[in-house]
Amino acid sequence: MAHALPVSPLARPLPELGVIRGVRLGAAEAGIRYKGRTDLVLAEFAPGTTVAGVFTQSKCPGAPVDWCRAALPHGLAGALVVNAGNANVFTGRAGHQTCQATAEAAAKLAGCPLNTVYLASTGVIGEILPHERLTAALPALHDSLSETGWEAAARGIMTTDTFPKAAIRTATLNGTTVTIQGIAKGSGMVAPDMATMLAFVATDAALPAPVLQSLLSEQTKTTFNCITVDSDTSTSDMLLLFATGAAQNPTVAADCDALTDPTLGAFRAALHAVLRDLALLVIRDGEGATKLMSIQVSGAVSNDSAHKVAMAIGNSPLVKTAIAGEDANWGRVVMAVGKCGEPADRDTLSVSIGGVCIARNGTVVTGYDETPVVAHMKGQDIDIAVDLGLGSGTAQIWSCDLTHGYIDINGSYRS
Amino acid sequence: MAHALPVSPLARPLPELGVIRGVRLGAAEAGIRYKGRTDLVLAEFAPGTTVAGVFTQSKCPGAPVDWCRAALPHGLAGALVVNAGNANVFTGRAGHQTCQATAEAAAKLAGCPLNTVYLASTGVIGEILPHERLTAALPALHDSLSETGWEAAARGIMTTDTFPKAAIRTATLNGTTVTIQGIAKGSGMVAPDMATMLAFVATDAALPAPVLQSLLSEQTKTTFNCITVDSDTSTSDMLLLFATGAAQNPTVAADCDALTDPTLGAFRAALHAVLRDLALLVIRDGEGATKLMSIQVSGAVSNDSAHKVAMAIGNSPLVKTAIAGEDANWGRVVMAVGKCGEPADRDTLSVSIGGVCIARNGTVVTGYDETPVVAHMKGQDIDIAVDLGLGSGTAQIWSCDLTHGYIDINGSYRS
Repeated sequence: MAHALPVSPLARPLPELGVIRGVRLGAAEAGIRYKGRTDLVLAEFAPGTTVAGVFTQSKCPGAPVDWCRAALPHGLAGALVVNAGNANVFTGRAGHQTCQATAEAAAKLAGCPLNTVYLASTGVIGEILPHERLTAALPALHDSLSETGWEAAARGIMTTDTFPKAAIRTATLNGTTVTIQGIAKGSGMVAPDMATMLAFVATDAALPAPVLQSLLSEQTKTTFNCITVDSDTSTSDMLLLFATGAAQNPTVAADCDALTDPTLGAFRAALHAVLRDLALLVIRDGEGATKLMSIQVSGAVSNDSAHKVAMAIGNSPLVKTAIAGEDANWGRVVMAVGKCGEPADRDTLSVSIGGVCIARNGTVVTGYDETPVVAHMKGQDIDIAVDLGLGSGTAQIWSCDLTHGYIDINGSYRS
Repeated sequence: MAHALPVSPLARPLPELGVIRGVRLGAAEAGIRYKGRTDLVLAEFAPGTTVAGVFTQSKCPGAPVDWCRAALPHGLAGALVVNAGNANVFTGRAGHQTCQATAEAAAKLAGCPLNTVYLASTGVIGEILPHERLTAALPALHDSLSETGWEAAARGIMTTDTFPKAAIRTATLNGTTVTIQGIAKGSGMVAPDMATMLAFVATDAALPAPVLQSLLSEQTKTTFNCITVDSDTSTSDMLLLFATGAAQNPTVAADCDALTDPTLGAFRAALHAVLRDLALLVIRDGEGATKLMSIQVSGAVSNDSAHKVAMAIGNSPLVKTAIAGEDANWGRVVMAVGKCGEPADRDTLSVSIGGVCIARNGTVVTGYDETPVVAHMKGQDIDIAVDLGLGSGTAQIWSCDLTHGYIDINGSYRS
């Protein structure tokens, strides 16, 4: 189980966390599945907090995903309840009832409307989540909430994660300094198709929900949607962004063009940095990972095509095992490009590893010296670059290697 | 390397092999990469032998694939040369030159036109294949050819394979008994998108090339294109079918409808059985495999959609590691259905393992008793059935589990 796993060699220490005025949070032991660790997180938001969210595109989403999707159009958030150990997925009517009971308990404690409560669950699929465990633990947890509960929350949402994950940035918005801080979990079943397993970001900026949503949807494409551990998209992926408004920056119009408005420039950059940090931390805790792969594709017929090629490389078991074995087996990169169905031409393709161009124009570079590439492969950060030589489409994605650790973790996850 | 691997627990002994009149074959040690084992196979076909072939859909195909594609429209086969240890892929002009020199040597020995020589290579990608090794070994190999060389050929084309693979059937064709016999190799980089790594089938039936091609293309869809070891489609996939005509059955018209003509009924069935046998033998030698998964999908909106759903299950690392761990983790099957992008509805979905219906209508079956499923998971043959409840589309595919053995083999393939 999660607590028995050694910490990922790619782990990063938590950054120095701040507070987000308007957010109080904490964690408790609800005994859902794990023993001797926290598994329930509650956050309470100041009145007027706006919210944006992106969710898994799975056709079999969890009950909490359904719940949050229904709440999101209201645009306001009063509370967030997250549990680890049981994903409340494929649990039918019982799953919805658990959501309803949990949200009612949280709304009562936080004094907020039911449709401003957000719910997330992560863990085993297909087992009924007994809401009594959650609702029994919530009152004492509510009494303990504080603005400094971020680390406790980051730890309370872990499953097979081996280290807690958080990121923080500040930005100037309309002349006011605002902070953006977030936490994430995710280690396996990571190939987000809207957001990763679970990630929660808050800011004290005052921003209308449509602006938040526009920024979050756009930036997810180049952060969480560009990571993969095992190509298996979760039923529970959820990324929520809360804005409390406590920084009291001058009003930003709800109908501004969030993606281009210069007022939002610094905020956009800071938010993107937080999302990218969190996404990379998830990869750094990929189940069994020992290497972080950064894959850049250029020369594709479109950015979308480049993304698909990059994902084919990042998801290839043969590429991932070669990286694990520190083997600069670039032929497997060629294989992955060739198989993925996107426009590619063997004779205009080039492949570089660690900045060294290995193959070009359909064959190995004359006099290719593997020495620097072998040295690069022994490091933790592996850079693979592919140019398709067809157009101007580019993409960057991140993945990790495939090791015995992944087999160990996933051959016995439920037992 | 290949010869050091323990034999797959799913291995099957070779069937009692026959001869195909009009085919003489054998194997030799050319020292291409392996030591102390055969790695070069030559087959010679009687004049008038017709041929059909299907090839990888990879955008980065090997030079031998290019060669065979160019030869195929002529419809006749005089010789086949196969080597193991080097795939002659992404080798540019040198790769084509190796093909040309090898084919010229084989054509001279067999006394056949150059465009009736077929070539196949399997092994490492991106290294120049020195044709001198092949052409030096061919004359003595040619002297040794015999009608009983099938087992030697099955062994000579192995790479990470742990056992040789062959299949045989007989059928009555226009009142004449004909035999179909074939060999295959493939263990990793197996997710055929037209044919698997390498498979060669011969029959003494007299059949025009267009009839052969029609049968082969159609039957590949339900045999080799329905297996996956690791979702990584090879650059070298090739399945060739040769018909020597030595059985002297009454003529079959080249323009008959090969897929429905009743004359061909028994031959179609026998050919399909040979192709299915060979495809399943490849899965039984999947790198590191300890379990054979059979995945049936029904109730899809189309057969094509059912196939994609089945492949998503069969390729999911989380499903495959659960099977390896003998864990009836049906939630991961739900995840794989949900992620694959095909029409699916959580609330009409049902999942069965080992014939036991576990989940239905969006939740676990009331009173689900895991005992028989746990017993089924301990066996070697794992049956997973999914009904989407949407339409009448069906598909069946085969996969294998993902174990430490796969990591061992692929973290050090080149070293």
